[in-house]
Amino acid sequence: MAPTFDLTEGRRRVRRVQRELAAAGLGGALLVQGMDRYYLTGTLQAGFVVVAADGDPLLLVRRDPERAAAESPFPVIPLGSARDLAEQIRAAFGAVPEPLGLELDVLPVVQAERLKAGFPGVAFGDAAPAVMAARAVKGEGEIAHIRRAAEGVAAAVARVPELLRDGVREIDLSADLERELRRHGHQGLLRMRGFGQEIFYGHVMAGTTAATVSGGNAPTGGAGFSAALPQGAGERAIRVGEPVVVDLVGVSQGYHSDQTRMFSLGPPQADHAAMYRAALQVQGAVLAATRPGVSGAELYRIALDAAAATPFAECFLGERHKVGFVGHGVGLELDEEPFLAPGYRKPLEAGMVFALEPKFIREGVAAVGVEDTVLVTAGGCERLTPSPQDWGVVSEV
Amino acid sequence: MAPTFDLTEGRRRVRRVQRELAAAGLGGALLVQGMDRYYLTGTLQAGFVVVAADGDPLLLVRRDPERAAAESPFPVIPLGSARDLAEQIRAAFGAVPEPLGLELDVLPVVQAERLKAGFPGVAFGDAAPAVMAARAVKGEGEIAHIRRAAEGVAAAVARVPELLRDGVREIDLSADLERELRRHGHQGLLRMRGFGQEIFYGHVMAGTTAATVSGGNAPTGGAGFSAALPQGAGERAIRVGEPVVVDLVGVSQGYHSDQTRMFSLGPPQADHAAMYRAALQVQGAVLAATRPGVSGAELYRIALDAAAATPFAECFLGERHKVGFVGHGVGLELDEEPFLAPGYRKPLEAGMVFALEPKFIREGVAAVGVEDTVLVTAGGCERLTPSPQDWGVVSEV
Repeated sequence: MAPTFDLTEGRRRVRRVQRELAAAGLGGALLVQGMDRYYLTGTLQAGFVVVAADGDPLLLVRRDPERAAAESPFPVIPLGSARDLAEQIRAAFGAVPEPLGLELDVLPVVQAERLKAGFPGVAFGDAAPAVMAARAVKGEGEIAHIRRAAEGVAAAVARVPELLRDGVREIDLSADLERELRRHGHQGLLRMRGFGQEIFYGHVMAGTTAATVSGGNAPTGGAGFSAALPQGAGERAIRVGEPVVVDLVGVSQGYHSDQTRMFSLGPPQADHAAMYRAALQVQGAVLAATRPGVSGAELYRIALDAAAATPFAECFLGERHKVGFVGHGVGLELDEEPFLAPGYRKPLEAGMVFALEPKFIREGVAAVGVEDTVLVTAGGCERLTPSPQDWGVVSEV
Repeated sequence: MAPTFDLTEGRRRVRRVQRELAAAGLGGALLVQGMDRYYLTGTLQAGFVVVAADGDPLLLVRRDPERAAAESPFPVIPLGSARDLAEQIRAAFGAVPEPLGLELDVLPVVQAERLKAGFPGVAFGDAAPAVMAARAVKGEGEIAHIRRAAEGVAAAVARVPELLRDGVREIDLSADLERELRRHGHQGLLRMRGFGQEIFYGHVMAGTTAATVSGGNAPTGGAGFSAALPQGAGERAIRVGEPVVVDLVGVSQGYHSDQTRMFSLGPPQADHAAMYRAALQVQGAVLAATRPGVSGAELYRIALDAAAATPFAECFLGERHKVGFVGHGVGLELDEEPFLAPGYRKPLEAGMVFALEPKFIREGVAAVGVEDTVLVTAGGCERLTPSPQDWGVVSEV
C-alpha cells in the first residue's frame, strides 16, 4: 500500500517550503491555490493555508471544516468569512508574517487585490517560486502515488490490442481507454498550473490528424472535436498502418504520470519505425546523463544533439512551431519543475520526477515519439512508467 | 445543422462587447483568456485579441496562425513575440485604446504585470465585467450548441436503465456514461471561470455518499475518489432503493448544458419521492416567473419561498453549508451570468441561458433534486434539456 500523508510527512513538506521562503527573503506565505494547499495539508476543502517562518501551518477552512479535519493531519480552524482572515492569522502567529508571499503566478489580479486590502501596511511578495521549488522534490509517498498512476495507465494501454480495429475513430479508442482508466480509480481531471493550459487525459490520435499543430504548449497537438478544444482525439477513423499515438496521463491521489506509446494496425511504415528508433535513441542519451547535479538545460542540449544525429532532426519537437522543452516535471500538476528546457539551469536533485518526451512531428504527415516518467535517484534515474517500449503491432484481423 | 460562427456573428459579438466596454468607461480591451478569445474570434489558438472602441478586433496569434486563420472569420496577424504586442496594436489602431481593459478576474498577477510593462504610460482597467455581460446574452448559434450539448446528455442518460445494476459502483456508472458522451462528441473537459473551481463531467452518485459536503461551490458534493478531487462519483456500490443523482454536463463546440435527473433501482423511498416532487414544485415556481425584466435575485427569492412551503425547507440547497445560488448561467463556462442568487440584481434579458437546480441535501443521508438548462425568451422561458423529468425507476432484475 502507498504510504499515506501523515503529520510527519506534512511537517517535512512544510519545512521544505519554509526553507525556500526564507531563501527568497519571505517571512511566510498565504496560500490559496488548490494544489499548494493540498500538498501542505492533505485537504482541498475551500480555505487558506498560512505558513510562517517556522512551526506548523495554519489551516483555515471555510467549507467544509469537518471534512478537512478528516483529511488533514493538521488541526483545522473554521473560517467564517475571508474578512476574518487577518485577525485569525494574528491570533495564531501574534503578527502577520512579513513579507507575506502570495501565489502571484496563478492568483488573479482582482483576488490578489482583495486579499491585500485585508492587510493594510503589510509587505507582500511572490511565494510561488519557493512553493514550486519545494514541490519539485518528491517524498516516498508522492513517488508511490506517481507509480500507481503509471500502473493504471499501463493497465489501460495493455488493452489497446483488443480495442484498436480498422475504422475505429480516435475518439472511440480514447473513450474506451478513458473508461478503463476511470474504472481503475483515475480522477479524470488533470491539472496544469500555467494560465490557460488545458489537457484532457492526453492525446490519443493517429496518422495525419496527430500531426496537426495547435496552440497548446505540448509537442503534439491533434485535431480535437472542434475549435473549442483544438487538441487530442478527433472523429477521424484510424486505418491500417497509421502510427497511433497513445499519450495518456494517469492520476492517483492527485499525482500524475505521463506516458506515450506507439501502436499500429499491422506493421508501421519503415520511416515511422526509424523515427521511433530515433526517439528511443534520444531518450537513451538523456537517461544516460540524468543524475543529481545535471541541469534541465544540459539534458535538453543532450536531447537536441542526439536528435541532430538522426535523419529526423528538422522535425524534432515539431517543424514550424517547435515546442521549447523535451521534458517537464510531473507531480500534483503536469507543468511543474524541473523543465528540460534551455532556461532551466538549476541542478536536478534526487527525488525530482519528470516526463521525458522526445517526439518527431512531421506536420500534416505523422507524429511519432515516446514518453516516460522518470525519477531522479542518487545514482542516476529510474523509469516509473512500466509499459513495454516496443512499438505495439496490432493484428489487422 | 447548427449555425456556424461567421463574420456576421463575430461582428455582432464584438459590437456587444464594445457597447459594454464603452458603458464601463473603457476605450478597448486586450483579451488573453481562452473563452473570451474564442467567443469573439472562433479560435483558441494561442495569442491575443484586441478590441478598440469600434471596428473589427485585432487577432494576434503566436501559435498556430495558420490554424487560427482556418478557424476564425477575422484576419489573423502572426505574432512573433509578446514583446511586439504594443507595436502591433499601435500599427493596427494608430494608438493603444485607453483605458485598456484586461481580464482582471482571471489574469494572474505576474502575467498582468508583464503585460502592463509593455505599455508604459497606458491606463488600464478591468474588462471582465463588460465581456461577461456581453457573453451572458446568447445568439442563435450559441443556443443551438447548448441544445446540442443537452441532446448528447439526454442520449447518454437514456441508457441509465441498462447500465444501473445492484452493486455497480458510482464510478462504473459514471465511466459508462462518460464513454457514451465522448462517443457522441463531448470534448470531455468542462470549463469554469472562477479561480480554483473545478468539475469533471458532473456528479453521478448515490445514497449517503451523494450527500457528502465538499468545498466546491455547488449544491451537491460527493465523496469522489480521494481528497485530491473531493467531489463526484466514488467507489461505493449503488444499492436497491438508493436515490441516484445523475448530474451531467454536456458540451458542444465549447458550449455547456447542465441537467440533473434522479434514478433508483426499484421504487424510491416515499420521503425521497416527496423531496423530488418538492424540487419540481420549486422549479415550476421559478420557471413561471422567468421572463425578461425579472432579476436573478428575485428568482432566487421565489425559489426560497417555494422551498419554504415544502416539508424540506431546512435542507434546501444544503444544511450546514447552504450554497448561495439556485441557478447559474451556462455558456462557454459553467459559472457565468446570470446568477439566481441574492446579489444578482440585473434584469434578465431574452437570450440568457441558465441552469436551474433546486436540490435538497440531507447531509450524510441523501441528495435529491432536479436541474434543467433554461433559455429566457421574449415571452417567458424554454427548457433546453429534453430528458423526461420523471424519477427513473429501474427494474431490479
